[in-house]
Amino acid sequence: MQRRLMTSSMNNLDKLVAYFEKFPGIGARQARRFAFHVLTLPPAEIEELARLITSLPETVKECERCHRFFATSQSGMLCGICSDYNRDHTKLMIVERDNDILPIERSGVYDGLYFVLGGTVPLLENKENNKLRGAALKSTVTHTLSEDLTEITLAFVVNPDGDNTARYVELLLKEILTDTKVTITRLGRGLSTGSELEYADADTIKNAFINRG
Amino acid sequence: MQRRLMTSSMNNLDKLVAYFEKFPGIGARQARRFAFHVLTLPPAEIEELARLITSLPETVKECERCHRFFATSQSGMLCGICSDYNRDHTKLMIVERDNDILPIERSGVYDGLYFVLGGTVPLLENKENNKLRGAALKSTVTHTLSEDLTEITLAFVVNPDGDNTARYVELLLKEILTDTKVTITRLGRGLSTGSELEYADADTIKNAFINRG
Amino acid sequence: MQRRLMTSSMNNLDKLVAYFEKFPGIGARQARRFAFHVLTLPPAEIEELARLITSLPETVKECERCHRFFATSQSGMLCGICSDYNRDHTKLMIVERDNDILPIERSGVYDGLYFVLGGTVPLLENKENNKLRGAALKSTVTHTLSEDLTEITLAFVVNPDGDNTARYVELLLKEILTDTKVTITRLGRGLSTGSELEYADADTIKNAFINRG
Amino acid sequence: MQRRLMTSSMNNLDKLVAYFEKFPGIGARQARRFAFHVLTLPPAEIEELARLITSLPETVKECERCHRFFATSQSGMLCGICSDYNRDHTKLMIVERDNDILPIERSGVYDGLYFVLGGTVPLLENKENNKLRGAALKSTVTHTLSEDLTEITLAFVVNPDGDNTARYVELLLKEILTDTKVTITRLGRGLSTGSELEYADADTIKNAFINRG
Repeated sequence: MQRRLMTSSMNNLDKLVAYFEKFPGIGARQARRFAFHVLTLPPAEIEELARLITSLPETVKECERCHRFFATSQSGMLCGICSDYNRDHTKLMIVERDNDILPIERSGVYDGLYFVLGGTVPLLENKENNKLRGAALKSTVTHTLSEDLTEITLAFVVNPDGDNTARYVELLLKEILTDTKVTITRLGRGLSTGSELEYADADTIKNAFINRG
Repeated sequence: MQRRLMTSSMNNLDKLVAYFEKFPGIGARQARRFAFHVLTLPPAEIEELARLITSLPETVKECERCHRFFATSQSGMLCGICSDYNRDHTKLMIVERDNDILPIERSGVYDGLYFVLGGTVPLLENKENNKLRGAALKSTVTHTLSEDLTEITLAFVVNPDGDNTARYVELLLKEILTDTKVTITRLGRGLSTGSELEYADADTIKNAFINRG
Repeated sequence: MQRRLMTSSMNNLDKLVAYFEKFPGIGARQARRFAFHVLTLPPAEIEELARLITSLPETVKECERCHRFFATSQSGMLCGICSDYNRDHTKLMIVERDNDILPIERSGVYDGLYFVLGGTVPLLENKENNKLRGAALKSTVTHTLSEDLTEITLAFVVNPDGDNTARYVELLLKEILTDTKVTITRLGRGLSTGSELEYADADTIKNAFINRG
Repeated sequence: MQRRLMTSSMNNLDKLVAYFEKFPGIGARQARRFAFHVLTLPPAEIEELARLITSLPETVKECERCHRFFATSQSGMLCGICSDYNRDHTKLMIVERDNDILPIERSGVYDGLYFVLGGTVPLLENKENNKLRGAALKSTVTHTLSEDLTEITLAFVVNPDGDNTARYVELLLKEILTDTKVTITRLGRGLSTGSELEYADADTIKNAFINRG
């Protein structure tokens, strides 16, 4: 006895579930639970959730200089970091994604500016992808920061794609950084918190030994 | 050098992230990614997502008889299962949650009606919780189904809370099922797909042996 | 600077590590740790460990009837279960491996005898493998147990290979069980401890519904 | 029907299983499988395994200088690394365990000598434990290596216990390294292979930034 599923007529519920399924990391079952969760919210909260989603594009601007998202409650076209005169404008750190910035800020170790590249250059396809902000990076470095800049730090994931992205960015920066004294650095490699020698890979041990001190 | 985080002014973005953090199974980091995901959607999709959320309470009704959610595009106050005359109205299966129904329907083994209890009765707090639909169950069994009903199957999670819920429902049904010939059954227990004897717990082995055939 | 590893001369240590690497589930690193662990034992314990290993074949006999291993401190050629007159000699349970018996004994639900088949018949190679004790099973059932036997329970893993093994054993038993009243049963299937309906596969739900009661 | 387990008489098998259960990382079930695995070995291999275990203490010596284990097939009281004149005797690396050395050798980055400390000094108990070779370390550094030594690298796990051990060893070395020009270094910290900024902890990000280059 195989019966037709009873969901054929659930148009709007199914549509919402389909949206939730496209959320990063969410499968069909959890998407359905999200919809049931929304159903349990008080009407006022459902309204506010929808309003916050609708207004998100106006709520959030992309910073003209570093291209991270920031709340439009701030005036101007620059985010809170780019417009903060107390930060060190001689340093620029290039990261892949918006989400990389928060942990660096939390560590309290870095006081300079950022640039969100928007992606990596995978090792096997050595051309710029559309979302990558290569041209914007050149423009920011050339026109906005050129006077003061002394160091650009590349902060990408430690794997072949991250290394390839670093090489790509270095080539791109060399085109525009002629005759300047900007140093290009990469984040240091070595043992990270919790690392045990017995389980460390050869590259990590090499880097840990080279960077000993 | 410990710096204040730069998020203090991101009011509406933070509010949205806070909503996403309350979605079942979602932490702070993934909630933030959800917001960035929404930002990448075309404006028309952002509008539709918000509209689907707003309209969810009107989109979905709770079935008067079995209390599962169903799309209001169906007319009437009964869901597609309760209003389907081809289903076997002599059988009722009581489940904890709406989400339990879909896998049972997919298995194709069951052709009867359902009742969504709305929760379990945890072993250590032997009183009915507010969300539990004990009174509604009595009403559905007494007034809506009483004529034809021959079997009620209890389908709860296999753990002490599920067993306690089954006992609770049995007591509740016995108050109203005097002088009728309704059988109360529970789903069978034993080895489930992939079970290996070597790793099976004693209860599962006991049930598998008792239910051998 | 790539250097030759310094292990070339560690002959006996390496040989021991190689033995430990063949232990079920053990990799190179853990095998090496085993050797270092043995080195930390007091000399008397190292001696005893070696002695226990040497004497293992004499320590342990394979039961003539059920083919499980048992300690030779017991007299006779039958294991403690096969020679226990208080057990129910009308029941036989056929399992794949020696290790399957302990959890069944621990569950306390079964009081009969066992037979260790020695493996499964994988679905894709429908011939008996060498380690499988098909002939021994026939012999045990025909000559040793035939008078009293009333039930044979097949207790294999719940997957296609286990099912195929059950079919193989049934065919084999039918050749010798003509004109007798021995029932062949299989362990019951359904929800096992901890099973939640929402995550259960269709087969498990089917079996749980069919075996309800 | 709860029956007594049938294992009471399996003395020697149980004893062997008990030995295997004390092997690092091994539970009751796997220990039992080890015994069954040994039973499947040809008699000659069982004999060799037992012989290798018995002879392990004579097979393996502890190096007088670095205290790692090495095969006694080498003549002399020094291991192959300590007695290798092609290695750089101006460098000493102090590790916690014997097993830490193999991955460092495999990385090919280090050409000096080692010292196996034998453990860590947990943060909450600031006294030397018995297995720690503090006195032996002093002796090795003072009497054996003092002439040439220019650098001692501390290579401990990256956690509070490892850091505490490094402080302990530094204090201990300072007592004997007065008026010499030996540098004490620690392995570098930063992003390790596979590290993503988004998931990195604050300490790792700090170290990665400080060690950028």
